[in-house]
Amino acid sequence: MSGNVRSATLLLSCTDQRGLVSRIAHFLFERGGNILDLDEHVDTDDGLFFIRVTWDTHQLTIPIASLAEAFTPLAKEFGAQWTIRLSDARHRVALFVSKYDHCLQEILWRHSIGEFDADIALVVSNHPDLRYLAERHGMPFHVFPITAQNKAEQEGKELALLKEQRIDTVVLARYMQVLSKGFIDAYPNRIINIHHSFLPAFSGSNPYKQACERGVKMIGATSHYVTEVLDDGPIIEQDIARISHRDRLNDVIRKGRDLERLVLARAVRFHLEDRVLVRGRKTIVFD
Amino acid sequence: MSGNVRSATLLLSCTDQRGLVSRIAHFLFERGGNILDLDEHVDTDDGLFFIRVTWDTHQLTIPIASLAEAFTPLAKEFGAQWTIRLSDARHRVALFVSKYDHCLQEILWRHSIGEFDADIALVVSNHPDLRYLAERHGMPFHVFPITAQNKAEQEGKELALLKEQRIDTVVLARYMQVLSKGFIDAYPNRIINIHHSFLPAFSGSNPYKQACERGVKMIGATSHYVTEVLDDGPIIEQDIARISHRDRLNDVIRKGRDLERLVLARAVRFHLEDRVLVRGRKTIVFD
Amino acid sequence: MSGNVRSATLLLSCTDQRGLVSRIAHFLFERGGNILDLDEHVDTDDGLFFIRVTWDTHQLTIPIASLAEAFTPLAKEFGAQWTIRLSDARHRVALFVSKYDHCLQEILWRHSIGEFDADIALVVSNHPDLRYLAERHGMPFHVFPITAQNKAEQEGKELALLKEQRIDTVVLARYMQVLSKGFIDAYPNRIINIHHSFLPAFSGSNPYKQACERGVKMIGATSHYVTEVLDDGPIIEQDIARISHRDRLNDVIRKGRDLERLVLARAVRFHLEDRVLVRGRKTIVFD
Amino acid sequence: MSGNVRSATLLLSCTDQRGLVSRIAHFLFERGGNILDLDEHVDTDDGLFFIRVTWDTHQLTIPIASLAEAFTPLAKEFGAQWTIRLSDARHRVALFVSKYDHCLQEILWRHSIGEFDADIALVVSNHPDLRYLAERHGMPFHVFPITAQNKAEQEGKELALLKEQRIDTVVLARYMQVLSKGFIDAYPNRIINIHHSFLPAFSGSNPYKQACERGVKMIGATSHYVTEVLDDGPIIEQDIARISHRDRLNDVIRKGRDLERLVLARAVRFHLEDRVLVRGRKTIVFD
Repeated sequence: MSGNVRSATLLLSCTDQRGLVSRIAHFLFERGGNILDLDEHVDTDDGLFFIRVTWDTHQLTIPIASLAEAFTPLAKEFGAQWTIRLSDARHRVALFVSKYDHCLQEILWRHSIGEFDADIALVVSNHPDLRYLAERHGMPFHVFPITAQNKAEQEGKELALLKEQRIDTVVLARYMQVLSKGFIDAYPNRIINIHHSFLPAFSGSNPYKQACERGVKMIGATSHYVTEVLDDGPIIEQDIARISHRDRLNDVIRKGRDLERLVLARAVRFHLEDRVLVRGRKTIVFD
Repeated sequence: MSGNVRSATLLLSCTDQRGLVSRIAHFLFERGGNILDLDEHVDTDDGLFFIRVTWDTHQLTIPIASLAEAFTPLAKEFGAQWTIRLSDARHRVALFVSKYDHCLQEILWRHSIGEFDADIALVVSNHPDLRYLAERHGMPFHVFPITAQNKAEQEGKELALLKEQRIDTVVLARYMQVLSKGFIDAYPNRIINIHHSFLPAFSGSNPYKQACERGVKMIGATSHYVTEVLDDGPIIEQDIARISHRDRLNDVIRKGRDLERLVLARAVRFHLEDRVLVRGRKTIVFD
Repeated sequence: MSGNVRSATLLLSCTDQRGLVSRIAHFLFERGGNILDLDEHVDTDDGLFFIRVTWDTHQLTIPIASLAEAFTPLAKEFGAQWTIRLSDARHRVALFVSKYDHCLQEILWRHSIGEFDADIALVVSNHPDLRYLAERHGMPFHVFPITAQNKAEQEGKELALLKEQRIDTVVLARYMQVLSKGFIDAYPNRIINIHHSFLPAFSGSNPYKQACERGVKMIGATSHYVTEVLDDGPIIEQDIARISHRDRLNDVIRKGRDLERLVLARAVRFHLEDRVLVRGRKTIVFD
Repeated sequence: MSGNVRSATLLLSCTDQRGLVSRIAHFLFERGGNILDLDEHVDTDDGLFFIRVTWDTHQLTIPIASLAEAFTPLAKEFGAQWTIRLSDARHRVALFVSKYDHCLQEILWRHSIGEFDADIALVVSNHPDLRYLAERHGMPFHVFPITAQNKAEQEGKELALLKEQRIDTVVLARYMQVLSKGFIDAYPNRIINIHHSFLPAFSGSNPYKQACERGVKMIGATSHYVTEVLDDGPIIEQDIARISHRDRLNDVIRKGRDLERLVLARAVRFHLEDRVLVRGRKTIVFD
């Protein structure tokens, strides 16, 4: 998907009912939209309908800005949860980091070569260590040291900054702090974390050490939306790498870094391209 | 997709034009069809449109047998290549084998546990060796020994048998004969082969030996539709396995057997579930 | 490794100390053994030494049967745990199954084409369902129905049968009963199980259902030695397969069958070729 | 393998003969070396012996600098090709690049966090574009523009620079020039290239375009030593990624970048840790 085609994307979920695809496609056809990509899924167990449609907006017969308004009556009739996003309206992202550089480095580099069709607006950290890396990419870097005492206060400041910067997506690129419920509630299914294990195995701290002690033959990384329960939110993407008895903890950490970088980058791309719908503890990823 | 839901599947490709999804979905909606699964792809480079739609036929308001006829005018208008297949109208398959048992064994076993929603009607071989395996599964086994002299004649008999048995799909489960143009023309994009390399590398004979001599670090298997040019038809599925210097030719063959079995089985399933559209030398696989 | 080379394999672990490789290699050299394969690992964290050596025995200058006796003084000096197995002395294996056929089918087929350099002597089941499959391969099939009441008694009979048949390795090919401590103690690190999850995730019952409910993007299979604690023994081999929201429970089970077959077969081969050393909850697999 | 353990590594190949492991291990034992890692391979088809041994040098009873000299008589007797490298004697590496940044960026970043136990001494390019990236890591950057007319002359200057800087390994991190025979002969099996295909498929130019046109379902990357014949040298490492009809050329290039980075980094690490032995067109990689 490139920035030079003006397009719009609908993400929608509702109870399944007859004629949904027909009526959505007809809605677009009537208004001069040409469908570029349509992916649809019916969960027949639960009777649920999920769809992602992207269409070319060049020959729209209504003002592009009024698309969402025009679609609202239909969506209401369906009882749907939905968003329409224009390709011009790029997501605005904040990256949260601590001391590890590999995920930040990866996301900033990919951003610099145009892999993400989004604006990364700023980097937040509880430590000053990675300032050089943010600045190398011309990215504002904000330090909010966190202690048990000041956590609520600092998170309040962070939220104010995010609001001021119109951030819609937060990426925890190995941010070593647990966010409070209040923070999470401000960004439901819009905070993306990378956990360095094949969840639900080895949740919590030191997953590589846990993996070595258990003697698994593969390690994993999991990117998920953050919810109140630690390492328990809807999974967006996972991957694994093979290890052997020859790999000491340091080797496992090295192999894991590569996993973390790639898995987080894929999850972020899926999210920024509006490919992810959340349903309870699960995601539908239209990749 | 299971056999207890009566459904129908449309596979269609044509030049891209506005309103295609809308009109196809509307056609089904008007006739009481409920879409279960829709996957659509536009090749914007070539301006081509591909779609696969499966819908529930329980509440159809027209006779199910007349679906294709009813759809014909629309398809003509689109200038489309298309098929509609009812879930009751199971594909009829012939397996072609020589002496290796692993692919035949795999396909017959999967068939026996219901993985393929199709009828495997018979096994053809140029050698008698695998008769026991076909008969173990209650499958008719026909031997047509092939020599340079009798090839045309034997293929003629094979085609007559396939026609008599209303076979629509031929699976070459390590059949060690090159089919003639005449045979291939009788089943365009309906003869599935498994080649034991990561095509286009190591086409032709002895690919594992070639792989060992080249010193590759991975071997592959490729399932493709058969065309006149050897090992050159549209690829349906591929996979690879890691090898090392410790693997002698016998080890490579052993690892390769597992690849061949799995890749062929996946390709056959995609084909039998009408998930494959061919466009020139390529396939679109709606998996 | 093929059956036509007479060879012997030493598996040994002990506290690390200087000169171990030199003295073991010298022991073989002095007695006319030619090393074909040597793999050695030092766990520098714990100060432990692990080695697997295979040597050609054709030009041995001592009777092959006396190799173990000749090595005993050295092993005692090292304080080692060790085995020497001659390639003639094939492992004797019992397969335990219940109602699922895929793992049994896979192991018997691989055995039939010579993939395992071992004798599979018999099949034990708590149900009569798979008798046809064992008999198809000319394999004795013994049914021991298990109830809460008769479990101890039936396991006693099973153990007597295994002893009578000189079985040294038990493969649980989807055997749906938990073995008692007494049974496990009779075969320490010689009972191989296949669990249909990426352990330690989803231990216990219905792992595929658990995986679907958690919304993971990959499923796994794990083959491990059986210990007293369920699904907790030393892991020999694992692998994974990708799933998506399109995969319903039945699809996950289908993909999982392929994983289970391959992972169990690999673990069994590693064990039968004396490639596995156990250290606490972990294995060293010299593959 | 870390820099704080002083150790030495022997890489050796010769015709197989009895007693090789014993005599090598004994040589080390006698001189107070404690073996940390030993990997050995016999190619029984060709009667060849390959070994890699790493040992702790803290309690050596001879001067560490005289190890190679002391080993020479034994090596001569074996008729071996061999090297002994002390962990202090780090490889010295030159990176060659053109305009693509991803491989350079990856190697420099990994170097910066200590993944390579080596000195990257300088970057050579035929274009000035990536100067900023080299300088960001404090790395000298030398531009040698290449034309058909000046190629021999410029390569001569490059070789002089490499010699002056005592470079032993050249890494072509997407260097878009074919090196001449003279240059290659100066670094036999010490120039590492990354080719963006699963060799031998799609050698030559535009492999991703070739892959798209052929309709493969997976793309690959191959890292190999450079020989006179383009894309034909001994393969060190390969890997693949899945693609589908949804991936346009740009997507394939994006997925390929990740492959190239990881495969090249792995190959470089294997080489710098003295894990690679070359035999004809193949490598033995003791990983």
